[in-house]
Amino acid sequence: MNEAPRITGVLSPVVTPFKADLAPDPERFVRQCRWLLSQNVGLAVFGTNSEANSLSVDEKLELLDRLVGSGLDPARMMPGTGHCALPDSVRLTAHAVKLGCGGVLMLPPFYYKGVSDEGLYRSFAEIIERVGESRLRVYLYHIPPVAQVPITLGLVERLLKAYPAQIAGMKDSGGDWKNTQAFLDAFARGGFDVFPGAETFLLQGMRHGGAGCISATANVNPAAIARLYDTWQAADADAQQKRLDEIRGTFAKFPMIPALKAAVAHYGGDAGWSTVRPPLVALTSEQSRALVTELDQRKFTMPGLRA
Amino acid sequence: MNEAPRITGVLSPVVTPFKADLAPDPERFVRQCRWLLSQNVGLAVFGTNSEANSLSVDEKLELLDRLVGSGLDPARMMPGTGHCALPDSVRLTAHAVKLGCGGVLMLPPFYYKGVSDEGLYRSFAEIIERVGESRLRVYLYHIPPVAQVPITLGLVERLLKAYPAQIAGMKDSGGDWKNTQAFLDAFARGGFDVFPGAETFLLQGMRHGGAGCISATANVNPAAIARLYDTWQAADADAQQKRLDEIRGTFAKFPMIPALKAAVAHYGGDAGWSTVRPPLVALTSEQSRALVTELDQRKFTMPGLRA
Repeated sequence: MNEAPRITGVLSPVVTPFKADLAPDPERFVRQCRWLLSQNVGLAVFGTNSEANSLSVDEKLELLDRLVGSGLDPARMMPGTGHCALPDSVRLTAHAVKLGCGGVLMLPPFYYKGVSDEGLYRSFAEIIERVGESRLRVYLYHIPPVAQVPITLGLVERLLKAYPAQIAGMKDSGGDWKNTQAFLDAFARGGFDVFPGAETFLLQGMRHGGAGCISATANVNPAAIARLYDTWQAADADAQQKRLDEIRGTFAKFPMIPALKAAVAHYGGDAGWSTVRPPLVALTSEQSRALVTELDQRKFTMPGLRA
Repeated sequence: MNEAPRITGVLSPVVTPFKADLAPDPERFVRQCRWLLSQNVGLAVFGTNSEANSLSVDEKLELLDRLVGSGLDPARMMPGTGHCALPDSVRLTAHAVKLGCGGVLMLPPFYYKGVSDEGLYRSFAEIIERVGESRLRVYLYHIPPVAQVPITLGLVERLLKAYPAQIAGMKDSGGDWKNTQAFLDAFARGGFDVFPGAETFLLQGMRHGGAGCISATANVNPAAIARLYDTWQAADADAQQKRLDEIRGTFAKFPMIPALKAAVAHYGGDAGWSTVRPPLVALTSEQSRALVTELDQRKFTMPGLRA
């Protein structure tokens, strides 16, 4: 087997910069991704926190091309490629594989609610069959609070049986440790990589065979989260986790995506970063000030971000 | 004012036919739409029952072009054009206006949950501004059981104030008559057309100033629903409504979209119609038989459908 090493560690669902006219800004995007890599954090671009579903497929293809064309390592990329429409998922997934991306993070089709595992199985199977690449590594994306369409143990079991090479793992953004543990217990020893969807469960996850985490706040606090991943067996691991939870707690007092962008704007000295696409709304200046005040009190910094 | 007459009456969220390879089938689609028009039912193509969100924007553009290119009247069309991503909504909406469609039915962006009315206002406003056509007629699509993102009274009020020419009405698929009535009471006299999302509320709607209905089962029972719209003040209106409810009740015992397609397949003598795209799953042959048996017992027919 000549198999590429799996993506592990801490990944950021990279926030997507928009220009004033709401077009994606590839230059800011490349710069941000380069900085995240320098902080030892991988690129789960086109995630929920990336406003990925607010982007057209063409916009995502172009941004991904720009990242790879700028010399960033595709092996460190796990773009989100799951859409409601089968041809959209196939198109972006196939392109990601062609570019050499280390994996893809795949939402289930999320418009219809209460769909069966049989229907979800067919969705993922059709994408895998149509992409038709042995190099494809799919990470299933469980985020019931947003997508409202869950990834179940039974679905993973069936997909792993049919596509053992392609089904590589999952991101669990359900926020329920018991669910994460159930997937770890069932599948982690078989090489199925489980990423908790927040650093909240990073230490607990590592202690139970987790693969790292993919977290919103890895956009703003990457180095510290990556350090805990690297040193989770160290004596100060619990203290590190506590500190991570405090920073995340500050962000969680605000709408998360606008707050992440407000922090990048403030600590990076680039006000344009605060722009979001509708239906999201940027923080008010009062909210931004309150966020920054509390972060400053916590001695939060984003070293190396400012150009 | 040289204003085109508004779309009113009964519209069908036309089921989308797929070939065996799951590609949309434009020929079957045109034939079905032509039949629906012959039954006095308008074409709300690309609705929830059309599996619209399982189609790429390119696929929808092509299907719409085929309908208009086949000589079907665009003034009788109200395609669904609302997507999660702003550029997708703008692209399909602009194309629909250019083709002369009587209106567009617009879902709010539905990935993020718990978004603010401010964010939804900006979504709809951006689309209207970017399309930039005085001919545009937007029907807002309220379907909380699926989209999970509601259209509120306050949002409609604000949009009507800013875009009185473009905001033409809504479809209320919430299944809650009190909500439909609240919108009728608040806006119907001002020329805002409220379409209940099922014929269940057709008669009640007409008695309170409604504009018709846009209903799943108008795919299979179009003439009878259109007749109640035309004769809602007749002595037998309540009896008609009861009969409509019985037929709908039979379909509602099964997953609705596969059941509609199974009925078109059976009564049209064209088995290929039963195909759905994942994540939906076609009825089993047992389910299809049970559906048809009950419909036959109710003396249900689809006159003129068989080629």
